[in-house]
Amino acid sequence: MAAGGGRKVVCITSGGTTVPLEQRCVRYIDNFSSGHRGAAAAEYFIEAGYAVVFLYRIGSVLPYTRSLPDEPLLECLELDDDSNIRVRKSCAEAVKKYHAAVAGNLLIKLPFTTIFEYLQMLQIVAQAMKPLGRYAMLFLAAAVSDFYIPWQSMAEHKIQSASGPLDMRLVQVPKMLSILRTEWSPLAFCISFKLETDSKILLEKADMALRKYKMHMVVANELQTRKEEVIVVTLDEKIPVHRDKSQPDSDVEQPLVELIVDKHSTYINNHR
Amino acid sequence: MAAGGGRKVVCITSGGTTVPLEQRCVRYIDNFSSGHRGAAAAEYFIEAGYAVVFLYRIGSVLPYTRSLPDEPLLECLELDDDSNIRVRKSCAEAVKKYHAAVAGNLLIKLPFTTIFEYLQMLQIVAQAMKPLGRYAMLFLAAAVSDFYIPWQSMAEHKIQSASGPLDMRLVQVPKMLSILRTEWSPLAFCISFKLETDSKILLEKADMALRKYKMHMVVANELQTRKEEVIVVTLDEKIPVHRDKSQPDSDVEQPLVELIVDKHSTYINNHR
Repeated sequence: MAAGGGRKVVCITSGGTTVPLEQRCVRYIDNFSSGHRGAAAAEYFIEAGYAVVFLYRIGSVLPYTRSLPDEPLLECLELDDDSNIRVRKSCAEAVKKYHAAVAGNLLIKLPFTTIFEYLQMLQIVAQAMKPLGRYAMLFLAAAVSDFYIPWQSMAEHKIQSASGPLDMRLVQVPKMLSILRTEWSPLAFCISFKLETDSKILLEKADMALRKYKMHMVVANELQTRKEEVIVVTLDEKIPVHRDKSQPDSDVEQPLVELIVDKHSTYINNHR
Repeated sequence: MAAGGGRKVVCITSGGTTVPLEQRCVRYIDNFSSGHRGAAAAEYFIEAGYAVVFLYRIGSVLPYTRSLPDEPLLECLELDDDSNIRVRKSCAEAVKKYHAAVAGNLLIKLPFTTIFEYLQMLQIVAQAMKPLGRYAMLFLAAAVSDFYIPWQSMAEHKIQSASGPLDMRLVQVPKMLSILRTEWSPLAFCISFKLETDSKILLEKADMALRKYKMHMVVANELQTRKEEVIVVTLDEKIPVHRDKSQPDSDVEQPLVELIVDKHSTYINNHR
């Protein structure tokens, strides 16, 4: 619980959005994102006393399932000698934690697939969190499409392959972060993520995003090293956050969430 | 078991392939396919005595998991009053059948993501099945990308969104079905699938594919009605296959696999 008594609530967005290429959609452009970061962060925020609204791409990683095999149902259950079904011990802990979080009203999951669903749900959630004021946080880790094909220029039917190369023109997705900050939930503590593959432009782009969209923090990460290190960019500082390499199972999300929770408390307390 | 004593083996391809848009890939084009049809067919082929090589897109539906909730691990397990983990009864049957199939060497699963992985694995599997002659079957239900960006014309880094609209030129993926038929596994019974959203061109396109790639069957299906009806196109006939609407849980894959098993037996027996 927050010091002032109010429950702190974080909306975590996680996974990639898609943009359809045809009106009756067979093909779409997708953004690679496993959802691992958002799922891990959700677990740590719940541990820190937050309630989590988990806005996630269908099929991406869910909280408490990171340590499980790829096909958990098939691989976590086993038959004993009498053909009874049993849960493998290594999987049981995750399931217990998940059910405890749901039963305690600390985790609600909302799935999306397309960029259109994502933006609409983000608006609804952010507006619903507006009454929480500074106790609300938006942790925008989803990999949101930058380009899309407007409905009126989309092919109605499946694009045919017989007629040679395919030329496509995609236009920019309107940036909604400014509207989120000014209208949907103006007091919420806002963290966005910047992923690049080119380290040379990463910090500059993170800094630009911070100023342009008035984020409280931008977490800069590079595709190749994102599981080892991120850099938290604020107006005043650039803070590198590493996973604890002395622990084999450690992750970068644990120290990252610790830092964010701390900064969020300061944000709440400074404006009392 | 086949009448002649040899084990019939079917390679089922299932789910959609991706094509990367960047060398260090953040974005990719994906083909919509849940993998439901391939997974259902695998179950019926195993029931009919086949061994199944299941070449599937990571994250698409697996055999014996169709009836399960979206998040099976979290939703199929429950805690009893003493906080012991139990499997919900509705889920137990699927897990038993899956383990029986794997333990009986009737199901092997091979995952892919990109079109490149898919084509390479298909070649390896088809060549490995060549010694089975007519007892081999290829059931090509995967939604394979038609267009891709060749490596040398791909952007190295994540495409930047600031510089206006994005123009892309995609070229056709080489059609490998002819090589599969003539070289990789020339005697295997070959079934491909044709999905269209426009019913007017569907049968014509299925017929073209049948002749061009020398398939034994093409299963024509329309996006909107594909769970209710398909049309099996051969050189001699066009056979509509419907699900049994008097049964609420019926599917179109059961009668489809029955028909295919029958045609495959005829194919084997006619060439003795």
